[in-house]
Amino acid sequence: MTVSTSIPGYTYGQPEVAQSPISLEALAQLQETILWSEEDVRYLQMAGEVLADQVDEILDLWYGFVGSHPHLLHYFTGPDGQPIASYLERVRARFGQWILDTCRRPYDQAWLNYQHEIALRHHRTKKNQVDGVEAPPIIPLRYLIAFIVPITATIEPFLAKKGHSPEEVAKMHQAWFKSIVLQVTLWSYPYAREGDF
Amino acid sequence: MTVSTSIPGYTYGQPEVAQSPISLEALAQLQETILWSEEDVRYLQMAGEVLADQVDEILDLWYGFVGSHPHLLHYFTGPDGQPIASYLERVRARFGQWILDTCRRPYDQAWLNYQHEIALRHHRTKKNQVDGVEAPPIIPLRYLIAFIVPITATIEPFLAKKGHSPEEVAKMHQAWFKSIVLQVTLWSYPYAREGDF
Ligand code: HEM
Ligand code: HEM
Repeated sequence: MTVSTSIPGYTYGQPEVAQSPISLEALAQLQETILWSEEDVRYLQMAGEVLADQVDEILDLWYGFVGSHPHLLHYFTGPDGQPIASYLERVRARFGQWILDTCRRPYDQAWLNYQHEIALRHHRTKKNQVDGVEAPPIIPLRYLIAFIVPITATIEPFLAKKGHSPEEVAKMHQAWFKSIVLQVTLWSYPYAREGDF
Repeated sequence: MTVSTSIPGYTYGQPEVAQSPISLEALAQLQETILWSEEDVRYLQMAGEVLADQVDEILDLWYGFVGSHPHLLHYFTGPDGQPIASYLERVRARFGQWILDTCRRPYDQAWLNYQHEIALRHHRTKKNQVDGVEAPPIIPLRYLIAFIVPITATIEPFLAKKGHSPEEVAKMHQAWFKSIVLQVTLWSYPYAREGDF
């Protein structure tokens, strides 16, 4: 979970990642809107330390959640209606890296660019391409936004597992929540009608 | 804050509110996705009792937040760049009623229909019409989603003000969080490209 270059399809910071259509100035206004502060950056760093050796357990939980809901698992299935094991596995590795990136990476131009890449990979623009699969062409916007809840709610017990004070856990959780909302906001770009983002 | 019929532009349950394009079945799948349960319904009822006589204070806080950020206040300004006092005031009354509706109303067809009405009122389809103003034509999707953070984070102290146990406050807050994510999800409908919602 640390040698990022070994993850198939993970292209963070690489030249083939296009520039985000969202400017750093627009990002800063979004950060103001979600009450983002330096404190959040610090507590996300702490969360990164807390979560690093729990990534597999977290992914087990999230994959269990998706796997037990046919309306979600659907987006990982092939033309025969069966889940595509290699697709699930490859995305899982990138998802694990993303947990760490969320906590550790500076939210700069390279981060913004990869945010857009992730947006395109959920949207019909680019879904399925990186892994060469024939799954449904798009994750609908409604599930992308709704997923803010499970991705935020289920992380809390993991944040509490390393003996931090309730106040520290609450602050790590708060910073995580803000980051998830920020990222889903950025990911909504390709879904929005011209001029509506 | 209780006689809802006296609120200008508030049309919940009235015949002029169109049917939501989102089905009750799609709503149920969204509720599954946000881990919605009967417990959340009960804790939102409790939240409704806790918040009822604090609505004005909550609105003062939220309006203070919007008012202190030019990039947000912008959506309440007229062609001269000045905030439109009557617009702010009329929306404020509906916003107050919405806090209670969020806690008390059953999430049924009438609720779904008014959700869509609120969506259209933030979107260019219908913004400004109800109050007859010439403010900017749309609240961008990015701010709609980002607002999940302030609307969720700032409610917690109000939930804690009536002597409930920390566990009860956490559960009310959790239910509120889920409801806000659910509602913003429904409000994203008119913003999404054909087939992307
Ligand atoms: C808060 C919401 C979500 C988060 C944080 C999230 C996170 C991620 C991450 C980190 C990746 C890999 C990005 C990369 O390629 O480096 C990914 C890909 C993927 N996610 Fe999500 N996701 C969310 C919502 C959803 C939902 C609702 C579904 C539906 C089941 C879903 C299904 C997928 C699929 C199928 C891929 C692979 C896309 C491709 O073909 O490249 N995601 N997600
Ligand atoms: C979680 C996000 C949000 C919530 C819960 C929310 C809530 C509401 C509610 C309850 C109403 C009145 C609905 C009715 O007519 O009955 C409303 C209207 C309005 N809101 Fe929001 N809002 C959100 C995001 C935003 C943002 C980001 C802005 C930008 C400053 C904004 C500006 C407005 C405006 C200008 C109106 C009046 C629209 C019209 O012309 O009818 N809202 N909002």
